[in-house]
Amino acid sequence: MRKNSFNMRVNWGDTDKAGIVYYPNYFKWFDIAGHQFFRSIGLSPAVLEKERGVIIPLIDVRCTFVKPLFYDDIITIHTEVSEIHNKVFKLSHEVYCGSDKTGYGYEVRGWVKNIDGKYKAVPIPEDVITILKQDIKSDESNLNPQLNA
Amino acid sequence: MRKNSFNMRVNWGDTDKAGIVYYPNYFKWFDIAGHQFFRSIGLSPAVLEKERGVIIPLIDVRCTFVKPLFYDDIITIHTEVSEIHNKVFKLSHEVYCGSDKTGYGYEVRGWVKNIDGKYKAVPIPEDVITILKQDIKSDESNLNPQLNA
Amino acid sequence: MRKNSFNMRVNWGDTDKAGIVYYPNYFKWFDIAGHQFFRSIGLSPAVLEKERGVIIPLIDVRCTFVKPLFYDDIITIHTEVSEIHNKVFKLSHEVYCGSDKTGYGYEVRGWVKNIDGKYKAVPIPEDVITILKQDIKSDESNLNPQLNA
Amino acid sequence: MRKNSFNMRVNWGDTDKAGIVYYPNYFKWFDIAGHQFFRSIGLSPAVLEKERGVIIPLIDVRCTFVKPLFYDDIITIHTEVSEIHNKVFKLSHEVYCGSDKTGYGYEVRGWVKNIDGKYKAVPIPEDVITILKQDIKSDESNLNPQLNA
Repeated sequence: MRKNSFNMRVNWGDTDKAGIVYYPNYFKWFDIAGHQFFRSIGLSPAVLEKERGVIIPLIDVRCTFVKPLFYDDIITIHTEVSEIHNKVFKLSHEVYCGSDKTGYGYEVRGWVKNIDGKYKAVPIPEDVITILKQDIKSDESNLNPQLNA
Repeated sequence: MRKNSFNMRVNWGDTDKAGIVYYPNYFKWFDIAGHQFFRSIGLSPAVLEKERGVIIPLIDVRCTFVKPLFYDDIITIHTEVSEIHNKVFKLSHEVYCGSDKTGYGYEVRGWVKNIDGKYKAVPIPEDVITILKQDIKSDESNLNPQLNA
Repeated sequence: MRKNSFNMRVNWGDTDKAGIVYYPNYFKWFDIAGHQFFRSIGLSPAVLEKERGVIIPLIDVRCTFVKPLFYDDIITIHTEVSEIHNKVFKLSHEVYCGSDKTGYGYEVRGWVKNIDGKYKAVPIPEDVITILKQDIKSDESNLNPQLNA
Repeated sequence: MRKNSFNMRVNWGDTDKAGIVYYPNYFKWFDIAGHQFFRSIGLSPAVLEKERGVIIPLIDVRCTFVKPLFYDDIITIHTEVSEIHNKVFKLSHEVYCGSDKTGYGYEVRGWVKNIDGKYKAVPIPEDVITILKQDIKSDESNLNPQLNA
């Protein structure tokens, strides 16, 4: 299945008074990782919406926390397609700081199409499934994670 | 000039690793205070947009920090119309924790109307100016700041 | 099991360009709801830390999204103790807008004590378990959710 | 005076229901830009605190908004030392999207030293002033803005 990775830094504003990352930020990273994943396969959310009238709303999300993260830590977020169903798919995310896994989880998203102004879950098209199933790992660790269009 | 006040609590996620409020949160509070102010005069942003086709985009914002704020602090945000010009107005905000002023600043916003699908700054109408100039202070300290429609 | 509820408003900054709530905000609300729950039983996180040297770090969190939430929506967050284990407990959260459940999930938190400067998971004490098991529902819907100390 | 630049992408969660950037995010970027500037001169906030017992708290901040920013926009943040006083300094920030300046402002920060556990504003040391006054422009546009230690 298709994979993507990139690095980020834990910013000052990501921490809380205990000095560790305030947990809702993990979900900001998951959201960025999901968008980044779709950019990595040439189907950025902006492209999906403009060219296919498709949005990928979140249905279910989970995160398990293993170790704390601190200000200035460099983290790597690994994203992988872990399940493909008829109208939904699952992205699994793992967050590492060096060799330590600090947290992991997933996002389940729907494949939802704008049909005559109404949004409706529809089957994921074959060409997208083919891409999602590719055994390719894009690694953008040394690039600006926010710049890979 | 018209005034409004309300209370909020400093939440866990508002702090940073120094244990004090991460400063961009002041601007979240200013933004809430501006919306709350317009709710207090019966012209919530939702009403402005639906009934008058008007939005009030931010042009300039500033905040000066006097004392740190900590987790669990109860703050009072005082908002007051401080300037009214032809197409723009200024809201001044002061943040108190007990009798200590912890920060203060302002938002300058424009009066912008949707005219045939284009947004254009227009003169603030007389009925609104009359309301903004009223010598009334609404105090909603004991109510949910986010519930005063 | 002990329950608590309170209301909040969906603020302007909680939405995204699709006009609906940006999902990581659900977790800000869950975090506030957890703190609010502990305040409602007289054991606010600040009290827990000061009087007992106890923190309650997050281990696992999940949210399932049912319906979109929009700017200005008034939401009610219902929190309930759903599981008590030896050193961990689970809070279940449900978010309603009127009679519509818009999302639900849980937080699993540990009971962690500062012992000689080291943090260590320890059994939840009996007096706390007794409180968590009480069949009491506190409803603070009409009060400022952030003001109930 | 010393300058630094870097690029970021406007993420999905940075927008609001009007489809444009929610303004408090400008201050998250200013804060990141300030930290990034200090990293670029070899004096990251982490280094300042550990090696010199110095923190640089915010005293005053302002932003003027010129044009809206949208999801997926690539922005460049230019930071420059614009004033150096005895115990405070000013960083000016400009945000560009392509050739359009979308907003600009400044942060005034103090030079505050931990002396026997008390924080006290002290004169900025000569070696730091020398660095701040260098006519050097570091451009990290093609690198991960969050990775330049």
